Amino acid sequence: MLKNREYLLNEMLKKKSMLCVGIDPDLSRISSQFNSSGFPIVDFAKCIIEQTCEYAIAYKLNIAFFESLGPIGWEQLEQIKEFIPKECLFIADAKRADIGNTSSMYAKYFFERLDADAITLHPYMGLDSLSPFLEHKSKWSIILALTSNPGSADFEKLMLENGRLLYEEVLTHFSENISADQAMFVVGATHPDHFLRIRSIVPDHFLLVPGIGAQGGDLKATIQLGKNDHGGLLINVGRSIIYPESKSSFEKDVQHAAKYFQSQMQEYWGI
Amino acid sequence: MLKNREYLLNEMLKKKSMLCVGIDPDLSRISSQFNSSGFPIVDFAKCIIEQTCEYAIAYKLNIAFFESLGPIGWEQLEQIKEFIPKECLFIADAKRADIGNTSSMYAKYFFERLDADAITLHPYMGLDSLSPFLEHKSKWSIILALTSNPGSADFEKLMLENGRLLYEEVLTHFSENISADQAMFVVGATHPDHFLRIRSIVPDHFLLVPGIGAQGGDLKATIQLGKNDHGGLLINVGRSIIYPESKSSFEKDVQHAAKYFQSQMQEYWGI
Repeated sequence: MLKNREYLLNEMLKKKSMLCVGIDPDLSRISSQFNSSGFPIVDFAKCIIEQTCEYAIAYKLNIAFFESLGPIGWEQLEQIKEFIPKECLFIADAKRADIGNTSSMYAKYFFERLDADAITLHPYMGLDSLSPFLEHKSKWSIILALTSNPGSADFEKLMLENGRLLYEEVLTHFSENISADQAMFVVGATHPDHFLRIRSIVPDHFLLVPGIGAQGGDLKATIQLGKNDHGGLLINVGRSIIYPESKSSFEKDVQHAAKYFQSQMQEYWGI
Repeated sequence: MLKNREYLLNEMLKKKSMLCVGIDPDLSRISSQFNSSGFPIVDFAKCIIEQTCEYAIAYKLNIAFFESLGPIGWEQLEQIKEFIPKECLFIADAKRADIGNTSSMYAKYFFERLDADAITLHPYMGLDSLSPFLEHKSKWSIILALTSNPGSADFEKLMLENGRLLYEEVLTHFSENISADQAMFVVGATHPDHFLRIRSIVPDHFLLVPGIGAQGGDLKATIQLGKNDHGGLLINVGRSIIYPESKSSFEKDVQHAAKYFQSQMQEYWGI
């Protein structure tokens, strides 16, 4: 199934949502009801997917949280991917990139064995470091541009001699070289004042937007300033959905949180 | 065992070497004698370590090649680390970095569970993205500065408004914030003309230098221009050692290649 921009827009219009659910399974934080399971992360993630799939366009699995557990973490990751509905985009949030022959190995794992639809990538080493990912024409490369953390000021926002900020150069260089049906860019919701300049550089590309919820990003401004004719936004919400403050049951809390963000997105998107 | 700069210099003087052996175990390329093994990569790596440990200061394991195999790749990685001699530096060449709570998970795996002495890291997201690694005071963070691939021209060599190239800003920012006993920088041997300016910014820090051998870097220039009072260089050689052109036996070919590079390093270092 080719999940290009047109496909994503259709799913977004059907669900009236831009929601990407971020699954960062921290064993020290997941609901105690999963503690007795032999594969607590699998049961935790399965439950979240079941409760949110009515509202979610994408699932972003944070690979570090699986990797931290050693081989059994990877085994659980491979089990979880089976529960992601086929109509949703499966994003491996791995933030990889290396020289060509090494990036080929990462692409082999994430795009072939794990069959993720998309992977997040560091831009620092340049276009040839991402080429092995781009050879997979039906897969998405989601390239870091302006990240949600304070450290984004250290390099990403530095002014270049050519008058562009570094992250603008990243957007320019990759958008000139990769189609809007194969590249997305990561832009944090913590920088609403940058969305207009970003859209002037990449009017057509999708943006994956972290930073809503625990990180304090502005959902309304993100959608109003960041959307385009293809929807153009996948907005990640992680901790605010998967670690709800206990009210009724874990299942209901998760579903309620996802529904809340979907309805906010629908309102601000105006559909 | 604290493997700080002084420790590394002592080892380098003892072995008269700057050699880091890069282990990138590609199943399609490793010597056929390991094909019948249940854990071919383990036996391959063990053999390489046995044949080279007389000459090697460090071993750099390229994590992508293990990751590409799924959970069994990680199991083999965890077996191989047991064979790395305790006096050598064990570098996990993982090229990670993410926002703080995610980098913590990567640090947990590589520094705690795998007990690597060092990890390679992407600088793009800034200092706070590396902080969780830096909290491990006895471990090394090896930060990409000027990489060996052609794509290093895309961003790393861009001129900033402040008159520095981006990679020089990376060196400046991190060397001002991280001690020379906890940070190293990756600088490719394919840029010999940049070593003098690099040493003017980071006179004291170690550099991890890839690009010798298969990638065509210049060993003599690298050492003459890049060395400092602490030795200051770990020079990675991967494919030219671990995939020798068959002459006698695999074991002898590997040992011969490692000895060759060590003797070249001794000569150019002048010790």
